[in-house]
Amino acid sequence: MSAPLTATQVGDLLGELRGRAPLVQCLTNSVVTGFTANTLLALGAAPAMVDNLEEATVFAGIADAVLINLGTISPTSGETMVATAEAAGRASTPWVLDPVAVGGLPLRDRVGARLVPLCPTVIRGNASEVMSLSGVDGGGRGVDSTAGSEAALESARALCARTGGTVAVSGPVDHIVTGDDVRTIANGTPMMTKVTGVGCALGAITAAFAACAPAADAAFAATAVWTIAAELAVERSTGPGSFAVELLDALHALDTEQLGRLHS
Amino acid sequence: MSAPLTATQVGDLLGELRGRAPLVQCLTNSVVTGFTANTLLALGAAPAMVDNLEEATVFAGIADAVLINLGTISPTSGETMVATAEAAGRASTPWVLDPVAVGGLPLRDRVGARLVPLCPTVIRGNASEVMSLSGVDGGGRGVDSTAGSEAALESARALCARTGGTVAVSGPVDHIVTGDDVRTIANGTPMMTKVTGVGCALGAITAAFAACAPAADAAFAATAVWTIAAELAVERSTGPGSFAVELLDALHALDTEQLGRLHS
Amino acid sequence: MSAPLTATQVGDLLGELRGRAPLVQCLTNSVVTGFTANTLLALGAAPAMVDNLEEATVFAGIADAVLINLGTISPTSGETMVATAEAAGRASTPWVLDPVAVGGLPLRDRVGARLVPLCPTVIRGNASEVMSLSGVDGGGRGVDSTAGSEAALESARALCARTGGTVAVSGPVDHIVTGDDVRTIANGTPMMTKVTGVGCALGAITAAFAACAPAADAAFAATAVWTIAAELAVERSTGPGSFAVELLDALHALDTEQLGRLHS
Repeated sequence: MSAPLTATQVGDLLGELRGRAPLVQCLTNSVVTGFTANTLLALGAAPAMVDNLEEATVFAGIADAVLINLGTISPTSGETMVATAEAAGRASTPWVLDPVAVGGLPLRDRVGARLVPLCPTVIRGNASEVMSLSGVDGGGRGVDSTAGSEAALESARALCARTGGTVAVSGPVDHIVTGDDVRTIANGTPMMTKVTGVGCALGAITAAFAACAPAADAAFAATAVWTIAAELAVERSTGPGSFAVELLDALHALDTEQLGRLHS
Repeated sequence: MSAPLTATQVGDLLGELRGRAPLVQCLTNSVVTGFTANTLLALGAAPAMVDNLEEATVFAGIADAVLINLGTISPTSGETMVATAEAAGRASTPWVLDPVAVGGLPLRDRVGARLVPLCPTVIRGNASEVMSLSGVDGGGRGVDSTAGSEAALESARALCARTGGTVAVSGPVDHIVTGDDVRTIANGTPMMTKVTGVGCALGAITAAFAACAPAADAAFAATAVWTIAAELAVERSTGPGSFAVELLDALHALDTEQLGRLHS
Repeated sequence: MSAPLTATQVGDLLGELRGRAPLVQCLTNSVVTGFTANTLLALGAAPAMVDNLEEATVFAGIADAVLINLGTISPTSGETMVATAEAAGRASTPWVLDPVAVGGLPLRDRVGARLVPLCPTVIRGNASEVMSLSGVDGGGRGVDSTAGSEAALESARALCARTGGTVAVSGPVDHIVTGDDVRTIANGTPMMTKVTGVGCALGAITAAFAACAPAADAAFAATAVWTIAAELAVERSTGPGSFAVELLDALHALDTEQLGRLHS
């Protein structure tokens, strides 16, 4: 375990992000596009969901970061994702891969296997997804993990060795793996699993921070900011409907003092 | 009219559903994907929007239930829907058909006509849609019905005879038809028509219950749970925006005592 | 500058709209479909997202107005948009063009250039989009404008001359241009830029009003109604999450007395 960022360092990164308002191109799934865009806006970033093949490859050279999320992949969108990741690589635009539900679903498994060698800056998924993406049987049940994040650490290290980037494994305790370095964050609330797209939005937040900081710090700051906003939101809500609303409000107002809840 | 379920029986079914957390595959329209997923999560089910042809047919054998909703059908998604319904049939996975806006719109009319012979466990629609699906001119105006649910009873019986399943006709009074059996529920609020996807979400809830109970009971319990949650939500809201939020909170917290509002 | 509508005239138009509940067909982007439909319902209109080629051209003759929004255009949807605009023209159905992020993105630039000669009743965009659509370099950064609305007035006039319709340029001050007539509205709140789809929803509201009034009045009333609802909503909210909820509630309850805030 290496020394993680302090709450103050995360707060400083958040301040820098808000000042720069990074333009984040999202190729994401149809369930969460609206919530993802609203999360990026609440964070202080600028979302752009440019996702057709011709424009997406152009835009990857304009955007400050790119998110590629496999949630509702189709044969067409899969090709666009690969081409956009290549374009991001050519332009040195940082990009995040969210391998939603990889493991036993053939189309996304094939596209995921083509994306890893393109070296995503950060891979963010749950334990089952990270294990499956690395070639290990990770179980999984639809979009839910059946494995704990600790079980995915070896897979995360193997993926890091292949990409040279960071792998963030989401779960009750989040593990952020970069080479041999493992940082943990133990914030958050189970209510995060009761609203669709909370994990997907973390991928987008990670992309926004990746426009402002090295991969390991970006993934750490993104996880800290999102899980702490969730803790604040759940205290103000009465169920998953109001939680989703309060989560955006909490993210928008989040400050360094509140980040003092960081438990890493 | 047969004896419907009691509030206690609905509450017991809801408890069983929450214990099992059925995995519900949704092939639904682009307007309501997020709200549908959030409704299933608030209910206690696990949504999965796997909707490309190759994976959808695989997933229909993994999922506990499938929803097929024609709202924003395309030629490609229409073929996927037919193939997925066939796969669900082969795997004996219960599935629900929501024939959104069928009646005078050629693509969905053709796909609907191909789906009925595949014997959906439950068909859920408004009166115009049910009439049109059965081959009667049902009127309709976009997604809205221009006929009362009583007018659709004969069509519902005709569809039941063809599918061997249940047909649920939504309206101010909901009618749940299985063979010669007709059950009614008179709960709900007009505010349900002021939020997009409330009817579509009922299709998803019905699919979740169909993983836990026979078709007639599943459609009854789903309608009871959703319309009573809506009554509770409207009392706590100040318009359609807050109603949608409160609806998810109310569904998440719904208990047997509150189900005592059941008016059937 | 011509005399704009008074608050009472806008209120009368809103009352007429609510009485007629115009059916608004939306070919819009995947990020905002749900929010757009909910906005139309809160307004008192009836949304219908019929967007496949075969049905969309049929429906353009049934709908009371059509919205075409280029936000997440694809080659397929681009062809559908052109064919639907042509069908709307044949049926004399008013239609609104929202040229999201036009300017330097090739697919939408080409489709936009084909749609303008089909004479949209109203074009609604930010300054960069309006300038780019008219053939001037408008800058722009994803979906955000880098130019002020005043800078786009010449482009707006040039577009009016080509379409015979109205061009509404959104910004801190909204400019509604019809031929040589320019009306301004200075209502609204910066929070409108912190929720995705607020601009896109204005396009939908404009289409709904275009079913009830001439283009210039429709664009004026739509902008007045939406920006004043936003002012009311921001006073009741604590961030962008609750703002989006309150915005729908405020729109649903909006009355002529509240429209007295109109600053034109």
